[in-house]
Amino acid sequence: MRSAVLRAGELLVRDDVPDPVPGMGQVLVEVKACGICGSDLHFAKHGALMLERGREMTGVPDLGGAPVELDQDVFMGHEFSAEVLEAGPDTVAPAAGTLVTSVPVMLSFTGLENLAYTNVLPAGYSERMLLSAPMLLEVPNGLDARRAALTEPMAVGLHAVNRSAIAAGEGALVLGCGPVGLAVIAALRLRGVEPIVASDFSPARRQLALTLGATEVVDPAQEPAFEAWARVGGSRSLVVFEAIGVPGIIDDALRHAPPQARVVVVGVCMEPDAITPFYGIAKELTITFCFGYDPMEFATTLTSIAEGQIDVSPMITGEVDLDGVPGAFQDLATPERHCKILVVP
Amino acid sequence: MRSAVLRAGELLVRDDVPDPVPGMGQVLVEVKACGICGSDLHFAKHGALMLERGREMTGVPDLGGAPVELDQDVFMGHEFSAEVLEAGPDTVAPAAGTLVTSVPVMLSFTGLENLAYTNVLPAGYSERMLLSAPMLLEVPNGLDARRAALTEPMAVGLHAVNRSAIAAGEGALVLGCGPVGLAVIAALRLRGVEPIVASDFSPARRQLALTLGATEVVDPAQEPAFEAWARVGGSRSLVVFEAIGVPGIIDDALRHAPPQARVVVVGVCMEPDAITPFYGIAKELTITFCFGYDPMEFATTLTSIAEGQIDVSPMITGEVDLDGVPGAFQDLATPERHCKILVVP
Repeated sequence: MRSAVLRAGELLVRDDVPDPVPGMGQVLVEVKACGICGSDLHFAKHGALMLERGREMTGVPDLGGAPVELDQDVFMGHEFSAEVLEAGPDTVAPAAGTLVTSVPVMLSFTGLENLAYTNVLPAGYSERMLLSAPMLLEVPNGLDARRAALTEPMAVGLHAVNRSAIAAGEGALVLGCGPVGLAVIAALRLRGVEPIVASDFSPARRQLALTLGATEVVDPAQEPAFEAWARVGGSRSLVVFEAIGVPGIIDDALRHAPPQARVVVVGVCMEPDAITPFYGIAKELTITFCFGYDPMEFATTLTSIAEGQIDVSPMITGEVDLDGVPGAFQDLATPERHCKILVVP
Repeated sequence: MRSAVLRAGELLVRDDVPDPVPGMGQVLVEVKACGICGSDLHFAKHGALMLERGREMTGVPDLGGAPVELDQDVFMGHEFSAEVLEAGPDTVAPAAGTLVTSVPVMLSFTGLENLAYTNVLPAGYSERMLLSAPMLLEVPNGLDARRAALTEPMAVGLHAVNRSAIAAGEGALVLGCGPVGLAVIAALRLRGVEPIVASDFSPARRQLALTLGATEVVDPAQEPAFEAWARVGGSRSLVVFEAIGVPGIIDDALRHAPPQARVVVVGVCMEPDAITPFYGIAKELTITFCFGYDPMEFATTLTSIAEGQIDVSPMITGEVDLDGVPGAFQDLATPERHCKILVVP
């Protein structure tokens, strides 16, 4: 079957990937839509650095998955919806034809296997893939496959908002209105937070921010984001969501945030970064780093999208087939043109 | 009267400081003991940088105090106990001879005036000083002036522990056993936290850590602090208290902390610092910056010391008169010899 893979830092499309065969507890599915994530772009560019950073760390539990090797083809694509084709032996699963999604993790007898950034299992940029039967969520309420594929990135926003513990009466400033920032904005709106000030250099992204629920948008070239916050939010307690993920942003937030503000880091900055601890100390700030979501947040997000509480349609700005994946990775470097590109194999 | 002041980065003793005269709401006191704080050493060395960092920040409310000028003499000494001499006109205050302490802040008609790092009011390294009558706390239970002077630094530890929101069942790792680290350890023990693992290169400071309540001490030259934590704390949820305050420590904590750990920064690092956000992201860590304490924490700490719940005596490793202040600043550069030196004017 066909699959877009990462080989030596380049995306290419293979047509000789062996068809996956579902084992016990597994379900073979046909991928209907799979979003291209900023992390995929990061990994294509900085994969070696990411793995090196991972190896440097201690205290990270070994969940049992096979380590990814960059000198072999890497499967990617973790924001997927798919149609059930066939369950493995002795496996309880939805009927063939059922539209499903899942957290991108495969349960196995040896632990958890990632369903992306792996040499082992074909992922969402493939015609077909295997999913873990116990992890499957049926897509409810007639939601189409394209919007269902946005469950994963939108769950990242819900998780960040949950982790921020933002309370009634507090306001939010979202720095960066790419898919992650927009997911945060949507989750903040669902939580009833107001005001939600959002900042991005791109007019198209600022427009999306308003659509997803920002109450005020600002072009930082015209007005510094924290000045816009002070104008709109006044003396309210502030939670800042950093959804840009480039060096310097955290320090800028520490420098300009009001006292007692909480800075929630959702953007993934791979490079080392410089901060000025004194800014944080003098104003008693907090930095909360976020990653992913838990299965309950994932399921909640699917429901929110399916019931129309979050309309993700405006975020889908492009669609390609597998042959279009390498080009889509290029296109996503231009924030003005695209938000989320879906791969429809 | 006599006062040790900072002039062009050097400590020197003046004998020509005008005797302060208490105004309405003010009380003239005779300083009985005043601890030398690491922040004073920082300020003597990095005062210009600290003021520059302060000016760079936005969002800091103006509390009305006069800005400190480094080209004029700077009064320091904010960890004091003192005896009431005389109240200002129309001022309710304890009787002359009463031993008191206070948060180092003077209320005035224009706002708050710092009682340290100021050109305006003589502070604790002086024979006499003014305090704000409404801020005075009588030293209870016959506690002596020397131990009462440690209320301020010990309150810093209580505040950090309160801000950490450490919960039952969680353990702590304290990096650095200078006065700040020891204050954290004492507050953790009062809270019933166990285990409390403390790390310092100095054998004398490790001994003090045990005395103040650490359940395990480690020499990081022999065993990395986080390995000691893993050995003792196992899979408990961890709060790390960073009480060293030099560049690189925060990044080291992010790199080695277990997932979901909270890093509480109590050490004051003035220089820019490099961190690797990816460590924080991958393990979903939190950094909580701390500064000072509130008046309630200060009062609670005074009670804890006066009632014998915290024995600060072993922390007092030296005593000098005003003439000894410049030399004491030199001596404190050697952690093996000293913990807290008291100035007894």
